Amino acid sequence: MNIPQSSFPRVVIIGGGFGGIALAKKLSKKEAQVVLLDMHNYHNFQPLLYQVSTGGLEPDSIAYPIRKVLQGYPNFFFRLANVEEIKTDTKRVKTNIGEIFYDYLVVATGSETNFFGNKGIETKGMAMKTIPQSLNLRSLILENFEQALLTDDLHERDALMNFVIVGGGPTGVELAGALAEIKKGILPKDYPDLDTRRAQINLVQGGDRLLPAMSAKASQKAEKFLEELGVNVWKNIRVTDYDGKRVSTNTKTIFDAETLVWAAGVKAVGLKGLDAEEMLCRGERLRVNHFHQIEGLEDVFAIGDVAQMESEDYPHGHPMMAQPAIQQGRNLGNNLVRLLEGRPMKPFVYKDKGSMATVGRNKAVVDMPNFKFQGVFAWFVWMFVHLYFLIGFRNRVVVFINWVYNYVRFDREARLIIRPFKKQNRVKRDNLVKN
Amino acid sequence: MNIPQSSFPRVVIIGGGFGGIALAKKLSKKEAQVVLLDMHNYHNFQPLLYQVSTGGLEPDSIAYPIRKVLQGYPNFFFRLANVEEIKTDTKRVKTNIGEIFYDYLVVATGSETNFFGNKGIETKGMAMKTIPQSLNLRSLILENFEQALLTDDLHERDALMNFVIVGGGPTGVELAGALAEIKKGILPKDYPDLDTRRAQINLVQGGDRLLPAMSAKASQKAEKFLEELGVNVWKNIRVTDYDGKRVSTNTKTIFDAETLVWAAGVKAVGLKGLDAEEMLCRGERLRVNHFHQIEGLEDVFAIGDVAQMESEDYPHGHPMMAQPAIQQGRNLGNNLVRLLEGRPMKPFVYKDKGSMATVGRNKAVVDMPNFKFQGVFAWFVWMFVHLYFLIGFRNRVVVFINWVYNYVRFDREARLIIRPFKKQNRVKRDNLVKN
Repeated sequence: MNIPQSSFPRVVIIGGGFGGIALAKKLSKKEAQVVLLDMHNYHNFQPLLYQVSTGGLEPDSIAYPIRKVLQGYPNFFFRLANVEEIKTDTKRVKTNIGEIFYDYLVVATGSETNFFGNKGIETKGMAMKTIPQSLNLRSLILENFEQALLTDDLHERDALMNFVIVGGGPTGVELAGALAEIKKGILPKDYPDLDTRRAQINLVQGGDRLLPAMSAKASQKAEKFLEELGVNVWKNIRVTDYDGKRVSTNTKTIFDAETLVWAAGVKAVGLKGLDAEEMLCRGERLRVNHFHQIEGLEDVFAIGDVAQMESEDYPHGHPMMAQPAIQQGRNLGNNLVRLLEGRPMKPFVYKDKGSMATVGRNKAVVDMPNFKFQGVFAWFVWMFVHLYFLIGFRNRVVVFINWVYNYVRFDREARLIIRPFKKQNRVKRDNLVKN
Repeated sequence: MNIPQSSFPRVVIIGGGFGGIALAKKLSKKEAQVVLLDMHNYHNFQPLLYQVSTGGLEPDSIAYPIRKVLQGYPNFFFRLANVEEIKTDTKRVKTNIGEIFYDYLVVATGSETNFFGNKGIETKGMAMKTIPQSLNLRSLILENFEQALLTDDLHERDALMNFVIVGGGPTGVELAGALAEIKKGILPKDYPDLDTRRAQINLVQGGDRLLPAMSAKASQKAEKFLEELGVNVWKNIRVTDYDGKRVSTNTKTIFDAETLVWAAGVKAVGLKGLDAEEMLCRGERLRVNHFHQIEGLEDVFAIGDVAQMESEDYPHGHPMMAQPAIQQGRNLGNNLVRLLEGRPMKPFVYKDKGSMATVGRNKAVVDMPNFKFQGVFAWFVWMFVHLYFLIGFRNRVVVFINWVYNYVRFDREARLIIRPFKKQNRVKRDNLVKN
């Protein structure tokens, strides 16, 4: 892997997401050699992926080169690598580009879509956890409308314009809202020769309310906003299967739809060698103590979505979102510095800054610990917070310009089919490379 | 194809490039039904593709949805289609989505890379005429540096950092200049653990000067600029083959390089049914008269790169660039309106507005008909003109912001490997989908 020997202890971080980057920054200029491994050469701002899928933002503006984040930091090494196994007995990480020894290992691999073993949904449905996946969805949505123009079979045409989004969390809500706005503002102008009023956006939630992690008021308001936008909200229905044409559920309701987006579950991205039964919790997360250490492994830590730190307030670990990952990365960074200096580590205390989701133009819901609000002001807060956490000055400016433009013009110009998805995968959609 | 019957004559345009779009705009609100066919749903600003390949611009900012260009124009229909054959006897266009009758047909299919039948270069080299191709090149360049880090074999490492660009026209010159700036400004910071001074940028030109279509002064200056940036300029050498590792030439010079970019030739994108020997000129262009009509076919026209209109000043047709395409599209648009109104058509007269190329920061060459200049002012003119011809307000703002940022910070942040090229194609690079 060609990482030079150093007199400093070596910290290997797997994953350049929110947690891994926050941690690496804390270790810069400290007496540690930091090696960051990621399968992509960029950090990806996942909360805005739905805007890439719906043509509101270019993918490049929500991605940031990892090398650039840590440019100029001495003792920092990045390698583009797929991690294959952790050998805790010899303290080595095995990757597709060779093995590397660690003094301290931090697992920050994040999460991926959980299809709960359903092969139909996995192969025929779309996920939206990576930039390529989001671009595939963007292409598919646009290809479906182009195809809908061509058919005289009304049933087929409706199925091409029928979007079923499974999962009523922030991702599902935000995607449904954005699609509804496209239906209203863009489709009639782009497709004057198609009756786009027949397009359907269905949001299917297994539980009895949307945004179950937020306040009851936020759930109600989000549902009201979605209904104002024309989204069909289905509650207490679980999608059970999909064959590429028909969506089955646990009720009599079925949907004939060419597009199913699965946003109904995530699971931790696990690693071979850290998969002992006693380490794993629900969703394959790794159980860690309050110092982020994996049980029984003093020198192996986990942070972010992949880690489950149980506490009184969070009996199933912290929410799988950016904030806990960032805070954990920072705390672990400070702790590793303390370790290196021979001082005791500090236990992690999560500071809940609240959560939020946007439904559309002037429509968002925000739960702060002591203050909950919805509507226009919430929408501006949502935008400000997302711009603030976006990495990179250029990205912030470009995203801001896009938002101003989209707001003033009721438009989304990145509706480009740059790599057709359906066309290239129609024949053997089962075998396609999705990420 | 589901295009409704109209009482107006139907004009079918094949291709939404500079020519096709300029023509369609002229026909908006006129008494004609306009059907535009393209294999992409976007117009692509080809002059800036090299900036996509080198991480300076996001692809979405140089692409523009075709439907949006012509939004709100009555009697306008766009279809995403691959044209398979023209049947001039029955006046029909055969496509992958069905056949369509035309009253007037306009071929504006543009040009593609010409490998002159060399399979080695075609399968192992990179082209840069489409957005997906440019993104593939972006990925490959970055993947090569990531890979160079990993090897101790100095010969292999040098080959990974050796870039051979074939063709000394504007594309080759601009790409070589951009790569040289990356070598100087970005690589040392991104790869402190790699001796990136060993990276080579070789620009190989078959003739005795760069930019042969421009003035001698422009050629000299461009060469001087490139040499200042550290590009190795090779003249009077023709690349004869490439096996993915070694570049052969017609001299004793060889290059061991993992990247060969072929920018040494274009040819018209031809159509079955319009391929009679008497129609075709060098580079497979279609010979047209001064009314853009293909010889012997009164109702079939060709404009832009695909058309060769011979005249005293341009015995081999106009240059294959944006300006002639735009001017021809406009003239043909006006002529078709005249035809519809029963008035005589006007012959096309090309107004040469000059040509230009940029080498790098503060370094460009501009030939105006009566005024030739090089350097800082030329560079500003180059930027202004490109912003002016870019379609779409949002695109202009985003490109401008990127340029300001890149200029001030000596940076290019879109160095993202979103879809790895080499990794996915290493095994069977021969069979890969390149566009």
